Amino acid sequence: MAQEELISFDRATIVGPGLLGASIGMCIREKKIADQIWTFARNENKREICEKSEWCDRALSDLKVAVSGSDLVILCTPVDTIRKQLPEICKWVKRGCMVTDVGSLKKEICTIAENLFYKKESFFIGSHPMAGSEKEGMEYASSEIFKHRNCILTPSEYATDRQIKMLTNMWQAVGMQVTEMKAEKHDEMVAWISHLPHVAASALINSLCSQNSYWMEHSGNGLRDTTRIASGNPAMWKEILAGNKKNIAKGIERLITQLNDFKQALITDREDELYNLLDLAKKMRDQLKDD
Amino acid sequence: MAQEELISFDRATIVGPGLLGASIGMCIREKKIADQIWTFARNENKREICEKSEWCDRALSDLKVAVSGSDLVILCTPVDTIRKQLPEICKWVKRGCMVTDVGSLKKEICTIAENLFYKKESFFIGSHPMAGSEKEGMEYASSEIFKHRNCILTPSEYATDRQIKMLTNMWQAVGMQVTEMKAEKHDEMVAWISHLPHVAASALINSLCSQNSYWMEHSGNGLRDTTRIASGNPAMWKEILAGNKKNIAKGIERLITQLNDFKQALITDREDELYNLLDLAKKMRDQLKDD
Repeated sequence: MAQEELISFDRATIVGPGLLGASIGMCIREKKIADQIWTFARNENKREICEKSEWCDRALSDLKVAVSGSDLVILCTPVDTIRKQLPEICKWVKRGCMVTDVGSLKKEICTIAENLFYKKESFFIGSHPMAGSEKEGMEYASSEIFKHRNCILTPSEYATDRQIKMLTNMWQAVGMQVTEMKAEKHDEMVAWISHLPHVAASALINSLCSQNSYWMEHSGNGLRDTTRIASGNPAMWKEILAGNKKNIAKGIERLITQLNDFKQALITDREDELYNLLDLAKKMRDQLKDD
Repeated sequence: MAQEELISFDRATIVGPGLLGASIGMCIREKKIADQIWTFARNENKREICEKSEWCDRALSDLKVAVSGSDLVILCTPVDTIRKQLPEICKWVKRGCMVTDVGSLKKEICTIAENLFYKKESFFIGSHPMAGSEKEGMEYASSEIFKHRNCILTPSEYATDRQIKMLTNMWQAVGMQVTEMKAEKHDEMVAWISHLPHVAASALINSLCSQNSYWMEHSGNGLRDTTRIASGNPAMWKEILAGNKKNIAKGIERLITQLNDFKQALITDREDELYNLLDLAKKMRDQLKDD
C-alpha cells in the first residue's frame, strides 16, 4: 500500500468551518489530500463565505447530505456539538469512511464513538491538533497554523494499524508532528499543559480587577504574554474546563501549593529558597522550545 | 528654554552596559542625545565589546573616571549594585549632572538618592523604563526595545519641573511614553503588573515539575506564552521579588483566592460561575493593548 494511497481521498467534509475547520480545509486543498472538499455549517452567512473560498467546493446546511458519500469527515464543532452529531454521522457515512474530530478533550468523545462505530465499516479515531490561538473564527484561518505543531491521536483498541497510519499521514501532510496516546491520558495531560495555564492566566488577570485599572495601561510584555490566552472564548473554555474538571482541580491545587511556597519564601526572608524556586522555573521553562 | 536644550548633553555615562544599558547607549547615539557616550563595566571582556560598538566612545573600569565630568549618568546595574554605587556617584558627578537609574524597584533607591542629592547641585530622579525581556545581556541590545513602551519617573518632592522635563524629554526621545508616579505607588503597581505575573509564570511551570516531563513536549503556545517570563535570570528576579515582598505577598494571596474560585466553580459544577470568571478574564485581558 503506497503512502499516497493513505492520504488521498475523493471527498473530505469539514463539519464546522471555524478557525480550525477552515484552516484544515485550506491545507487539504493545498496538499491535494482530497479532490473535493465539502463543508457543513448551520449559519447561512458562513456557508456563503465558504463557497466563495478557494478551499471549499460546497457548503451545506444539511449534515446528512454533507457527510454521506465522503471518505474523510473531520468534526470541528465544539465538544458538546460533536457529542450530539456523532450518532447521526455514524449512521450516514459510507463504508470505509475515516471520521475524526479536533476536540480538545478526548475521553468522552472517544468512548461515545467507540460504542457507535464498533463493528461498523467506517471508523473513528480522535485527534487533537494542538494549534489555534485565543483568536477564533474563519477570518483567522490559515494553512500555516498546523506547521510543526503537535497532534495527538487517541485510537481505541479496535483501531487497526492501517487506520492509525491513514490518520497519521493526513495530519503529517498538514505539517503536524503526530503522537498516539490513550484518550484518558490525553485528557490528564492537557489538564496540565493547556487547561491549567488557561485557568492561571484567567485568575491572574482577574486578580488585577480589584486594583486601579489605570495600572494595566502600564503593563509590559510580561503581563501581556502571561495572560494572553485568557482572551479565549469564555463559552468554549467553560465547556473544556467543565469537561475535565477533576484533572484541572488537581492542577489548581498543585499551583496553589507552588504559589504558597513563593509566598512563604518571601515573607520569611528565605532568599535561598526563593532563588531555588526561580531557578527551577527557569530550568523547566528553558526546556520548552520557543517558536 | 528650547526643547533641544533639554535633551542635548555633552557626555552621557552608562553605568552597566547590559541589555538595557547598551540599548540606551544605542538610542543616545542614534538620537544624538549626547555628543560623547562613555560606559563603566567591571568586566574587561564587556569593555572590549563596548569599545568596538558604534554607540560607545570609551569603556572604563574606574567608576569615578567614568562619571566625573558627564552631564548625564544612567545607572543600569542591578538594584543592589545601584544602592552601593549611589553614594560614590553622588560625590563624583559634576554640577548640574542629571543622574537616573533603570531599576525596576523605586522606593528604596529613591529614598537613598533623595538623602544623598538633597541640596547638591546635581540631581537624581528615578526611572523605570518598562522594556527588556526574559533575555539578558548586551548581545540582545537594540535601540528598538524602548519604542512605544512605558517609562515611569518617580521624582522626589524636591525635583524641579525643569529637571523632570529634562528626564521626560530624554526618555521620549528614546521612543517611550513617560508618566510620573510616587516611588511607593510605583512599587505597589509593579508588584501587580510585573512581579505577580513573574511569580505566577514560575509557579505554573514548577507545578508541571512533578508530572511526566514528556508532557511538556506536547505543549502548545498557551503554556509557552503563559510561562515565557519564567526564563528570566533567577538571581535578578530573586532580588526584585525580595525587594517588594509585602506588595507581592498580597498579590499572591489574591491570586490564590481567584484560583480557589475557579476550583470551587469546577468541583461544584457551577458552570454559570465558571463562565462568569472566564468572561471577566476575557474582558479584562482584551483591555490590554497587544503589540
